[in-house]
Amino acid sequence: MKPLTLATQAANSTDAVDPVWARICEQTRAQAEEEPILASFLHATILNHDTFEAALSFHLANKLDSPMAPAMMVREVITEAMADDPAIAEAARADLFAIDTRDSACCSLAAPFLYFKGFHALQSYRIAHWLWQNERRSLALFLQNRISQVFAVDIHPAAQIGMGIMLDHATGIVIGETAVVENNVSIMQSVTLGGTGKESGDRHPKVRQGVLISAGATVLGNIEIGEGAKVGAGSVVLKSVAPHTTVAGVPAVLVGRCLSESPALDMNHELACQGDCPESS
Amino acid sequence: MKPLTLATQAANSTDAVDPVWARICEQTRAQAEEEPILASFLHATILNHDTFEAALSFHLANKLDSPMAPAMMVREVITEAMADDPAIAEAARADLFAIDTRDSACCSLAAPFLYFKGFHALQSYRIAHWLWQNERRSLALFLQNRISQVFAVDIHPAAQIGMGIMLDHATGIVIGETAVVENNVSIMQSVTLGGTGKESGDRHPKVRQGVLISAGATVLGNIEIGEGAKVGAGSVVLKSVAPHTTVAGVPAVLVGRCLSESPALDMNHELACQGDCPESS
Amino acid sequence: MKPLTLATQAANSTDAVDPVWARICEQTRAQAEEEPILASFLHATILNHDTFEAALSFHLANKLDSPMAPAMMVREVITEAMADDPAIAEAARADLFAIDTRDSACCSLAAPFLYFKGFHALQSYRIAHWLWQNERRSLALFLQNRISQVFAVDIHPAAQIGMGIMLDHATGIVIGETAVVENNVSIMQSVTLGGTGKESGDRHPKVRQGVLISAGATVLGNIEIGEGAKVGAGSVVLKSVAPHTTVAGVPAVLVGRCLSESPALDMNHELACQGDCPESS
Amino acid sequence: MKPLTLATQAANSTDAVDPVWARICEQTRAQAEEEPILASFLHATILNHDTFEAALSFHLANKLDSPMAPAMMVREVITEAMADDPAIAEAARADLFAIDTRDSACCSLAAPFLYFKGFHALQSYRIAHWLWQNERRSLALFLQNRISQVFAVDIHPAAQIGMGIMLDHATGIVIGETAVVENNVSIMQSVTLGGTGKESGDRHPKVRQGVLISAGATVLGNIEIGEGAKVGAGSVVLKSVAPHTTVAGVPAVLVGRCLSESPALDMNHELACQGDCPESS
Amino acid sequence: MKPLTLATQAANSTDAVDPVWARICEQTRAQAEEEPILASFLHATILNHDTFEAALSFHLANKLDSPMAPAMMVREVITEAMADDPAIAEAARADLFAIDTRDSACCSLAAPFLYFKGFHALQSYRIAHWLWQNERRSLALFLQNRISQVFAVDIHPAAQIGMGIMLDHATGIVIGETAVVENNVSIMQSVTLGGTGKESGDRHPKVRQGVLISAGATVLGNIEIGEGAKVGAGSVVLKSVAPHTTVAGVPAVLVGRCLSESPALDMNHELACQGDCPESS
Amino acid sequence: MKPLTLATQAANSTDAVDPVWARICEQTRAQAEEEPILASFLHATILNHDTFEAALSFHLANKLDSPMAPAMMVREVITEAMADDPAIAEAARADLFAIDTRDSACCSLAAPFLYFKGFHALQSYRIAHWLWQNERRSLALFLQNRISQVFAVDIHPAAQIGMGIMLDHATGIVIGETAVVENNVSIMQSVTLGGTGKESGDRHPKVRQGVLISAGATVLGNIEIGEGAKVGAGSVVLKSVAPHTTVAGVPAVLVGRCLSESPALDMNHELACQGDCPESS
Repeated sequence: MKPLTLATQAANSTDAVDPVWARICEQTRAQAEEEPILASFLHATILNHDTFEAALSFHLANKLDSPMAPAMMVREVITEAMADDPAIAEAARADLFAIDTRDSACCSLAAPFLYFKGFHALQSYRIAHWLWQNERRSLALFLQNRISQVFAVDIHPAAQIGMGIMLDHATGIVIGETAVVENNVSIMQSVTLGGTGKESGDRHPKVRQGVLISAGATVLGNIEIGEGAKVGAGSVVLKSVAPHTTVAGVPAVLVGRCLSESPALDMNHELACQGDCPESS
Repeated sequence: MKPLTLATQAANSTDAVDPVWARICEQTRAQAEEEPILASFLHATILNHDTFEAALSFHLANKLDSPMAPAMMVREVITEAMADDPAIAEAARADLFAIDTRDSACCSLAAPFLYFKGFHALQSYRIAHWLWQNERRSLALFLQNRISQVFAVDIHPAAQIGMGIMLDHATGIVIGETAVVENNVSIMQSVTLGGTGKESGDRHPKVRQGVLISAGATVLGNIEIGEGAKVGAGSVVLKSVAPHTTVAGVPAVLVGRCLSESPALDMNHELACQGDCPESS
Repeated sequence: MKPLTLATQAANSTDAVDPVWARICEQTRAQAEEEPILASFLHATILNHDTFEAALSFHLANKLDSPMAPAMMVREVITEAMADDPAIAEAARADLFAIDTRDSACCSLAAPFLYFKGFHALQSYRIAHWLWQNERRSLALFLQNRISQVFAVDIHPAAQIGMGIMLDHATGIVIGETAVVENNVSIMQSVTLGGTGKESGDRHPKVRQGVLISAGATVLGNIEIGEGAKVGAGSVVLKSVAPHTTVAGVPAVLVGRCLSESPALDMNHELACQGDCPESS
Repeated sequence: MKPLTLATQAANSTDAVDPVWARICEQTRAQAEEEPILASFLHATILNHDTFEAALSFHLANKLDSPMAPAMMVREVITEAMADDPAIAEAARADLFAIDTRDSACCSLAAPFLYFKGFHALQSYRIAHWLWQNERRSLALFLQNRISQVFAVDIHPAAQIGMGIMLDHATGIVIGETAVVENNVSIMQSVTLGGTGKESGDRHPKVRQGVLISAGATVLGNIEIGEGAKVGAGSVVLKSVAPHTTVAGVPAVLVGRCLSESPALDMNHELACQGDCPESS
Repeated sequence: MKPLTLATQAANSTDAVDPVWARICEQTRAQAEEEPILASFLHATILNHDTFEAALSFHLANKLDSPMAPAMMVREVITEAMADDPAIAEAARADLFAIDTRDSACCSLAAPFLYFKGFHALQSYRIAHWLWQNERRSLALFLQNRISQVFAVDIHPAAQIGMGIMLDHATGIVIGETAVVENNVSIMQSVTLGGTGKESGDRHPKVRQGVLISAGATVLGNIEIGEGAKVGAGSVVLKSVAPHTTVAGVPAVLVGRCLSESPALDMNHELACQGDCPESS
Repeated sequence: MKPLTLATQAANSTDAVDPVWARICEQTRAQAEEEPILASFLHATILNHDTFEAALSFHLANKLDSPMAPAMMVREVITEAMADDPAIAEAARADLFAIDTRDSACCSLAAPFLYFKGFHALQSYRIAHWLWQNERRSLALFLQNRISQVFAVDIHPAAQIGMGIMLDHATGIVIGETAVVENNVSIMQSVTLGGTGKESGDRHPKVRQGVLISAGATVLGNIEIGEGAKVGAGSVVLKSVAPHTTVAGVPAVLVGRCLSESPALDMNHELACQGDCPESS
């Protein structure tokens, strides 16, 4: 998957000075000054650290901490993964930009870094995915379980997920083993990208660039959700969806074309319809 | 929003003797005697305290506890909020009454106080809301994140929620920034009151008094769910709903009038329909 | 409810040598050797123990641990329950077999034992159910709350659930007080088996053997989901479903007969339809 | 070592009704009623349990708890030891009687059980000693380290210690590998029973029945402190001490005979001297 | 006991602006800026709070925290005690001045407040003493045990201790039930103020103003250590000591007069001797 | 200070293969196999790690862990110190050899690494000392406080301590700001190397190579304990001690010459005397 312009720009930010990290620190410093009760948490999580990577590994490790795999041990794994594959932190930066751009209740990079459960779940998955690719499958499963228990988000470590992704609110999201999610996709709470049948093999959805999947939608089987498509809230999608179209309903049917190139970026959940579609009839 | 009679009655109970607190203590004492394993928890959480407020702040702080913001620190904030705005604990009392009255599996005030995740999430939101109103937005976001992680309930601290509210089972509930929920509303698990589009501004549902929103319903946009209306389970509501009507389906359509004045109080999730409605046709 | 053959076979395994436990230990030993970071957790949870029961009580107690009811105290209750009613651990063994057989992303008994949230939630419910039957209702409610908070699964302790059950992904599952779930049923994430109305009494679904309920389905009221039936994803079921049929939609309607005897075992979520059904028309 | 009358009487108390346990429960119940803040702790530690052994294992495991060997795991070992060797709990009962009788600031069995660090350290040592005798030496050393860190008392697990022992205040007590402490001995804070030289073999003191060793005394080498002897505070004892005599000083010299048969029981730390002794000259 | 000038001056500082608190905050702010790793701790412990009392109760509660009596519960007791008896925090301020003045390795008020175990143990004792005086003896004993376990300092809650006290290094200090320690006393590590005999009643030392007791000294029985006296390191004191004299040895004998009015303030541990004394002979 | 041969040999062991680390791992593997209850701890602490340094930083961080400075944060500091100054881990290796050679109750390198409080306190001091030298004094004081609270050992971070040091049993050891302890010294429990007077400046003992200071000895002031000297248990030393002599008593006087070149290595605490000395007269 090639990164989109937005993501690339973020990725390049690791040279010399890291502008993402600089912005996060600046926004955090302001918070720490105006809210002394948070100063403690903000110093430990952000201001103590020199790099985006160090802060992210610290924050995720704290979230995933458990008596059976304490934060200190989890962090070693995260650090190892990020050092081995710089694309992990690059993707995390692109995800922050995605949230900053698309979420109307959000207005900074620091806020999603610190407080968005979907962001935390997604970055934790990226570590589990790295473990899976490196044949450390039992540790990947361990991590998947922790992510599911802590964030209520269940992403199989073998799933392939791009960058510039927003998992909004995130509770109840399920993404299966052979699912593919390309860059710049937005997925709302309670969305399932599930398989069907008990055979192994390629059996989960392929979600192309720019797709928006609204709250509670269930997408099942090895089908394709075409580039720039929109899946309406509460829909059950059992067949492939053409690029730049909107589907909705149980089961989902075509309700129109998408005006927007990338509905994921607009976050317009309306089923606005142009041309010939069932609802308009 | 003016409190309904039920809520007011609870609210007045803080004078002299607090009957809500007295009932909770009495019911707890009975439990502590018959179940020694719980005695420890029940003493610490209820019987040790002199007031409803002290017990509630203790219990919520324990639930929200994390290494980065330990219970002791969280409790200071809760105590400060409750002292500054007595309506917070007043609303909590009304919420307990709401659950006691509406939940057929519940038969006390102590049980929801101690064990209902939806009650805990809602009262924690009330603290985050107070912080938001007092311009302490970063701490409000911190708390929102904790609530989402601990209870799997994601309520934006700016949302406006009345009293006498039941969030039943609660997992997966999402309530957006400009949503309004009036008094005596019942909301089931996996319900979304979401926005649409990425513009900021008033973009979430307004839910009027007495409404019942059944499990898994998604209500999107700045629309109105009229007083005493009922939204069927799994519905996707994209248009305003007239008072005292029932809507259902994806997308939701009118299926009848509500016989009950306040479906929230009856908790009847059937789509029983009177008069002219699609399903009956 | 009489156990199916599969379950019985597992149940008998406690004599002399316990083949389930032997397999779990063997699979765990391999993991511990190839992933030193997990060795610590795997020894403490599995390899340290002599029996399936000892390991399960240790693992669940650790998951349910909280300052107000520490693991050590919770484990005493679990141990007491398992000693009093051997059917609890028997059912747990059958549940492991169910997951091993039906989940295409799973290939061992150790993996679900260690890492599947739905398995942990279900076994914890079995303890709460035992407490409820033994009139220790407040402790049962305490446990229900912990299960809901930790696993985001809310099962009323009075519900009756058979063996050979798979709760897949599990986030958001709600099962009400008078619900019955027979043997060899599969239930996906965000499924509700709910009541309707605020009267107490028998008001929740009865789910017969071999049923598959797909993701996000809401089944409401004292209705029957007949043996071997399938409920499509995102459906809202308000009426009884005949054996070996498939229903789907909001509200759910008949979409065909099930080819499979036990859709729960096939995990085929497609709404494939044979004969006369709405969608095919 | 044969138990003294006092100890035997305590030991027999396990038949039918256990009077030691009954007294502890009664005294604890009174405390729990008058001090609600402690009710929680007292229920968990004492009132929840049916036997002295269950309560003691719970309390010690809680004290010795660490992330690397959590309470639940430690308790398994304690329970195993107490079940295998009933003399452990028997000795613990005798130790409680000893403190109740000798400590003028103490007036119950519950108080030392709950609050005396020396009692906790000594009972924890008894478990480590059992492990050592059963050739589980690394776990014994692990426990010795925990005891030293938690209670600041360092007793080698191979040391042999009788019953009816009071370790008063206890901070800084060190007892070496080949030391022997017979029944009904009292040892004050900062006392060392140490070895000398780096050869292994029998190189630590043998302390006979009824001996009192006052605060800060250092007793070094394979010497004998005879029955009923008294060692003055701050003394350094490098030679054997005759029965029923008092020694004091650096190095310790004879300062008189002991009037008392068992100075350990009188806890008189004065160097009162009868007859021919250096100080009186 | 009437407070000395130094203590009084500190005590008056609570009006309007509290200069002690102001200095602590200023010194802490400097630390937090130069050492980001501590910023977190320093904000939570000092900078978050408005008053000396709030910070002290927070810090002590954190130190005394245990699963059986969590910080949040302990803090309630500390807050209650400090509100009821303002002399507690007044004495704490005087103790800080004492350390600042006497300890050559210390150069601030913030350092002992934050880091001196003897200060923490002493202030915790002050709470236990308040409980004892208010007839809450079991909670006082609970606290004594926590202090002994956490700080390795064992002070009976009934002991009477003045203000302007320095417990230096503090490990192993034991102070008995009927001991009295007047204002402006310095006590080094491993010092015992013990009783003798097993009778209850007044049986511990009375230590007058300005006394210095050096490391490892053992003072036993109802004897008086006169104003301005000095007890040499490692001494065993069994007889009263005249004001402004120095004693040393095992047993302790007069070694000279003290040149200093208040040896506690000079912290000169030498046995410098003027006039007629054993060592000089 | 130049390292002795023994220490140098250990220090060189970091090239290519580290024999110290290899031995520790081998001894630990044996333990983990024979004691499953410890396997968990041993894997996490030793077997998971590739280097001596990684394991030591993990183990110390776990010991020093507190809510206010969690293990993960502490470990960062330890890792930084060890990377900056390789002499820290070199000294730790030499200390292990020292214990292995001198302690007759010890027979491995793994045992002191894992279980000896004095070793843990000393290595933690080495980190605090590095901080002090790097002008990070407040963090050094923070660490000193943690060491004092956790291990009951109080070493000022400015003190200078060589390698090949054994702090045996360790409870109550106090070492002051300007103290110097050269290589291959043994210090027993409750020993004080203290200052005298409240002037700052050089005011603590200088302890030369090979010295043995027995239990409870108090050494005060800027005096020298000459190479190969021995200080008897319970002694109070106020004057310099000539090389290769033994002193004892309160105050300490010469009792003879030391036969051994390095009494620290022999650990013979007897006051055996050759030639002209008080006791022999």
